[in-house]
Amino acid sequence: MKFSELTVEIVKKQSFLCIGLDSDINKIPEFLMKFDDPVFEFNKQIIDATHDLAIAYKPNIAFYESRGVAGWKSLESTVSYLNDNYPDILLIADAKRGDIGNTSKEYAKAFFSQMDFDAITVAPYMGRDSVEPFLEFKDRWVIVLGLTSNLGAFDFQFNWLAEDNAYLYEKVISETIKWGTKENTMFVVGATKAEHLKRIRKLIPDHFLLVPGVGVQGGSLDEVVRNGMNKNCGLIVNSSRGIIFAGNGQNFAEDARLKTLELQQQMSGLLKKYL
Amino acid sequence: MKFSELTVEIVKKQSFLCIGLDSDINKIPEFLMKFDDPVFEFNKQIIDATHDLAIAYKPNIAFYESRGVAGWKSLESTVSYLNDNYPDILLIADAKRGDIGNTSKEYAKAFFSQMDFDAITVAPYMGRDSVEPFLEFKDRWVIVLGLTSNLGAFDFQFNWLAEDNAYLYEKVISETIKWGTKENTMFVVGATKAEHLKRIRKLIPDHFLLVPGVGVQGGSLDEVVRNGMNKNCGLIVNSSRGIIFAGNGQNFAEDARLKTLELQQQMSGLLKKYL
Repeated sequence: MKFSELTVEIVKKQSFLCIGLDSDINKIPEFLMKFDDPVFEFNKQIIDATHDLAIAYKPNIAFYESRGVAGWKSLESTVSYLNDNYPDILLIADAKRGDIGNTSKEYAKAFFSQMDFDAITVAPYMGRDSVEPFLEFKDRWVIVLGLTSNLGAFDFQFNWLAEDNAYLYEKVISETIKWGTKENTMFVVGATKAEHLKRIRKLIPDHFLLVPGVGVQGGSLDEVVRNGMNKNCGLIVNSSRGIIFAGNGQNFAEDARLKTLELQQQMSGLLKKYL
Repeated sequence: MKFSELTVEIVKKQSFLCIGLDSDINKIPEFLMKFDDPVFEFNKQIIDATHDLAIAYKPNIAFYESRGVAGWKSLESTVSYLNDNYPDILLIADAKRGDIGNTSKEYAKAFFSQMDFDAITVAPYMGRDSVEPFLEFKDRWVIVLGLTSNLGAFDFQFNWLAEDNAYLYEKVISETIKWGTKENTMFVVGATKAEHLKRIRKLIPDHFLLVPGVGVQGGSLDEVVRNGMNKNCGLIVNSSRGIIFAGNGQNFAEDARLKTLELQQQMSGLLKKYL
């Protein structure tokens, strides 16, 4: 998916929402267990009920991997379903992969060839050759961990680099942008660290940011937008548990839609105000 | 697998060798394609031919994930085969995972419950809550990326932290050891950075190190041992491509054994000299 296509979708849907498919089999409605693949059925119903309000879906791979082969099948079915039925959706593998060059190349194959994701999250610790193999795929996105939403972000990401006059997370961003372009590189910036978005926008005024941490983790959508929105929106804000587990009964998909609609309407208002 | 069991195996086998099962389906001998699961057959023959000379095996998960469900099946079969037939082997998932707490917990389930690995490699960028879920499993190991063997290691791992008077990789090590013990935490240190092993041993005299980068990547076993061996050996040195792709014909497993024997004999000599 191209940068220009993404911005068109945002304006068309008046939404910059990504729905996180962290579809934990232990949390999905009980009645789905009668299906051959309960997790795929859950995802399918969530997607059908919300696709007109969201521009992206983001399965977190851990929730699939923890079920082994069965989980991998649920994941592959979900990816195919989305690509077959809703081709204009940005499909993000939240995988946080990264390894030496010849190995990262295999991860890129896994998510961009074997499965047809548009984007993948990547961990930066191993540096350039761990990220570049993902950038070699045309019209695909690498989403590098910048400043994450969790408490552990304070352990290393805020370490101060005097020589660079920057936090480590800033160095990661300013270095990584040299390897790609705004057309194929985004950054993860947690909504719980929204006050840092101004610093980040000085480094990367034009890049898209994937922002988790609104909802259960406590980040504020207003603050994210005030500090992080740019002329193309430049934000993809994710909500996972707050949407997909909004309800737990027969009507779980409608419950998810209501929660999604609430967020989309907030977003529409913010787009009108700031864009 | 416990620390004490690992050290017993090292002495018994006179080896601290880990064999990396980076079993790329495009590189395994052609004649294996007639088997239902060529990659599992390849791994099985390599394992049968080398298990008395190695203390650990380390499938790199990327080479399995890139084949989707089929790859995941090869991986599960390999793990079961090793656990059923060679229970004294340390089985490492080279996965370099790491995510926010509730998600890392899913990865821990994937590799420690759903599959029965003894250890997993973990990326440190997201900090404490991304690592701790792996530490909650008894007699399992977390192997944190410290100083990696690739060129990209120079991008961030050598950033200087003036406040800590340390490189980032040193800070990662000195911080991470607080979260676990030498009984459940190891570090990845590339053989290509062997001159830094002395600095690392000052921080962690007693922890085990997983050392990739001997062989194709150019690291020296002698130098690794001189700078990194401790009173319990404290080293697990990995070789992947140099062993498993030593031959490419009907006798590939015997070729792999010869290469393994060569390394084990070197290791035996070094253990006698330095331990």
